Amino acid sequence: MLSRPAAVQDQTWDPMDKLTQFGDMPADDFRRYGYEVVDWLANYFERIEEFPVLSQVRPDDVKNALPASAPEQGEPFGEVLRDVDRVILPAVTHWNHPNFHGLFSTSTSSVGVFAEMFAAAFDMKAMLWRTAPASTELEDVVLDWLRQMTGLPDVFEGIIYDTASVSTMHAIAAARERADPESRKLGLLGRGEAPRMRVYLSEHVHSSIDKSVITLGLGIQSLRRIETNERFEMIPEKLAEAIDDDIEAGILPICAIPTIGTTSTTSIDPVAAVADICEKYGIWMHVDAAYAGSAAIVPELQPLFAGWERADSIVMNPHKWLFTPFDLSVLYCRDLDDLKKAFSLVPEYLKTDDAERVKNGMDYGIQLGRRFRSLKLWFVMRYFGRSGLIARIREHCRLARTFAARVEESPNWEVAAPVPFALVCFRAKAGDIDAANALNEEIMRIVNSSGKAYISHTKLNGRITLRLSVGSVHVEERHIEKVWQLLETAYEQAAK
Amino acid sequence: MLSRPAAVQDQTWDPMDKLTQFGDMPADDFRRYGYEVVDWLANYFERIEEFPVLSQVRPDDVKNALPASAPEQGEPFGEVLRDVDRVILPAVTHWNHPNFHGLFSTSTSSVGVFAEMFAAAFDMKAMLWRTAPASTELEDVVLDWLRQMTGLPDVFEGIIYDTASVSTMHAIAAARERADPESRKLGLLGRGEAPRMRVYLSEHVHSSIDKSVITLGLGIQSLRRIETNERFEMIPEKLAEAIDDDIEAGILPICAIPTIGTTSTTSIDPVAAVADICEKYGIWMHVDAAYAGSAAIVPELQPLFAGWERADSIVMNPHKWLFTPFDLSVLYCRDLDDLKKAFSLVPEYLKTDDAERVKNGMDYGIQLGRRFRSLKLWFVMRYFGRSGLIARIREHCRLARTFAARVEESPNWEVAAPVPFALVCFRAKAGDIDAANALNEEIMRIVNSSGKAYISHTKLNGRITLRLSVGSVHVEERHIEKVWQLLETAYEQAAK
Repeated sequence: MLSRPAAVQDQTWDPMDKLTQFGDMPADDFRRYGYEVVDWLANYFERIEEFPVLSQVRPDDVKNALPASAPEQGEPFGEVLRDVDRVILPAVTHWNHPNFHGLFSTSTSSVGVFAEMFAAAFDMKAMLWRTAPASTELEDVVLDWLRQMTGLPDVFEGIIYDTASVSTMHAIAAARERADPESRKLGLLGRGEAPRMRVYLSEHVHSSIDKSVITLGLGIQSLRRIETNERFEMIPEKLAEAIDDDIEAGILPICAIPTIGTTSTTSIDPVAAVADICEKYGIWMHVDAAYAGSAAIVPELQPLFAGWERADSIVMNPHKWLFTPFDLSVLYCRDLDDLKKAFSLVPEYLKTDDAERVKNGMDYGIQLGRRFRSLKLWFVMRYFGRSGLIARIREHCRLARTFAARVEESPNWEVAAPVPFALVCFRAKAGDIDAANALNEEIMRIVNSSGKAYISHTKLNGRITLRLSVGSVHVEERHIEKVWQLLETAYEQAAK
Repeated sequence: MLSRPAAVQDQTWDPMDKLTQFGDMPADDFRRYGYEVVDWLANYFERIEEFPVLSQVRPDDVKNALPASAPEQGEPFGEVLRDVDRVILPAVTHWNHPNFHGLFSTSTSSVGVFAEMFAAAFDMKAMLWRTAPASTELEDVVLDWLRQMTGLPDVFEGIIYDTASVSTMHAIAAARERADPESRKLGLLGRGEAPRMRVYLSEHVHSSIDKSVITLGLGIQSLRRIETNERFEMIPEKLAEAIDDDIEAGILPICAIPTIGTTSTTSIDPVAAVADICEKYGIWMHVDAAYAGSAAIVPELQPLFAGWERADSIVMNPHKWLFTPFDLSVLYCRDLDDLKKAFSLVPEYLKTDDAERVKNGMDYGIQLGRRFRSLKLWFVMRYFGRSGLIARIREHCRLARTFAARVEESPNWEVAAPVPFALVCFRAKAGDIDAANALNEEIMRIVNSSGKAYISHTKLNGRITLRLSVGSVHVEERHIEKVWQLLETAYEQAAK
């Protein structure tokens, strides 16, 4: 129970007084309840490790705990807060818990929460410069700061979207536009002899790209998955062969998508070699660095990004590994006009007399209204500073290597992929593949149902492989030690 | 200056102490700065009317006020807050100002801000039930509450996206999937004799639909704009004629999009008649009620929505007129499986053993991660109650009619379109069209540059028409009186 008891909260509250009138909550109540929410959240962050990482509720628990209809009369806000304790909190999976190691471990920071308070209160929709000058210009400022920190050349300009899925869809749309400038008007159907288009990626690419090509009318069969080597990296020779093969078959190559930090293993495609091929054939190179992009701020990791400066577009997600609350995805483009050509469209009710002089965010994508997302990235960069951010990401990589070393030292476990960043792919050893798969699934079940940590899995060459991601702003060496002990205990239990 | 002076704020701060270590802001600082942000926002809401509605900064003012690069060392958060005062606040266009009457007047509410604090702090990504049970289930709960409040039958299930642009794109994608189930796999190109597809809408439909068909590979020419009557409503006979004409030409009709509350005038297409036609031809009916949908909660306005219960999909935006901070758009579908068929796709690293028993949000669209958006709608519904929300929307409509009456009573002005909701289209009268256009543009310029109110415009039958939207939770009759006086004064000045 992180809220104060009802008697303290609502002694002065008379909803009939306040809510039958128009308007919003009185400012005194805003202060009083605002402090209360701040206290609640401060307690939450202080006590985060007491909560089970994966929520332990069962399906429908939340639904069953709430009324079937909205209340007819307004309720005191204290009632709502108590239901946050009673219904919501038990059903939260705690992404901020330092032992959240599943998927990619991401977390917000305190200043990120503050920024979202301002953004929600200002409630600006940044479709036009004039409807949100602060948002429009701060976006350019922080994206240039981030560009410098990640070592990208200044030809790159960025735009903020919600998620990498949306960023990548826009990148492929721009590639489609470049390959077929008439498609914006004519579409893709009934075009007679117009060739099918092809997008190239490795076997380990993120599923969002499948959804992008579905959405864009290219279809799943427009994807051609290029073989990877034993390190799960795209083999560039295979890419060149595939392109030649397609051209011969009358298919139009439009885009190749090397990944720096794939979702399964954080493997790194050979971006420079892919860039050579893209240049030779004149096709768009989109680099998916949604996860790993943040790590480019660490000087000794920059070599892992070699070649991405030759991309047409790059996606990176500060909400993944830069302590920025979800959602904030950045698409950097070599020429932002490529996006504008694909998407700009100005109806009369949005025409302004300054369109030549300012940047209007709506011109660069499907979303018209856009949240004030740049504020949280600005708060994060200022509060931690470049050196503070570097130190944290560097430490996460060190912790991952420490964990990988524990795995390697143990006779019962093995590391299943290289560890270039802060994700470790590993598994318990057992007789044959089926036995090993069963063992690892059982270990994962035991660890996750304990509530003490959350790990997830992938499949590599048909083998269930566990994934431990290190990325929370709260994580320390003791948390890595704890999850290792949990795994060892689960192994003992499952291997019996 | 809404922040306290530096001397008060940072006397205890030593960044070298705190920021060279790992981790996040200490909890005591979170409390202290959190209170400060709450105070700042409380002052902001109390003083909202002192600020110019449209920001008065010039292009590049924000950029020029900030350093060219991110700070190397972290800064005390008090410094950041002072820059919010110095740089950000002057560049905010105040959407919460009660005299923001441009575009659609939207505003947040205090409880909406509180909800965003929780959502940012929990930082859940609701791709899977298990990664965010609270978010996944509360979304179903509040969307069912809203469905009941708006009088939709219980066959409708909803899903939350960020914006109406994205909701509508998903609806048209589902229509495309139904018309051509192979398109998901095969795409639209190189399909030989596959017919072009057509989407029908009125001349007054929102520009987001143009962007949707560009994105989906249908192309702008897939849109066929149906003539409207003198009330700016789609003429159903013209729709039927267009469909027949297209079928004869070998074009495949896939979707019709009537609007309830168009962006220019809030006109209402004859949805029941369009539904008859859609049923006859077996095509998808998507109702765009992004703006007006919230008004369906007002009993006496429900007749304006007649026929929408026959839709395949409906979009409505609580962030427009339900006091919910941006962004929160709802897509209701007659059969949510239509979306799932179009978009579901589960890679190994997201496979779970409960997929049959729970709803995984990622299955219904392109975005994988999804913010905890339902929380703010839940807070709003509980704090204001159904009756409180009805009262506010009803009052906005009354204020709009009051304003329209002032316009009509005046010899210098005219109302330019019916006023079914809370938007008034009007203009100053002058000799010919050119003179009238110049006069109205000048009036708009004078009002907007005063900083005292913000109105916007559209073009109706070639004539510049001013738009006054009433929708802020803070708006009162005196604000409508004030903007009327501003307009009268501007008229005097411009007509000279």
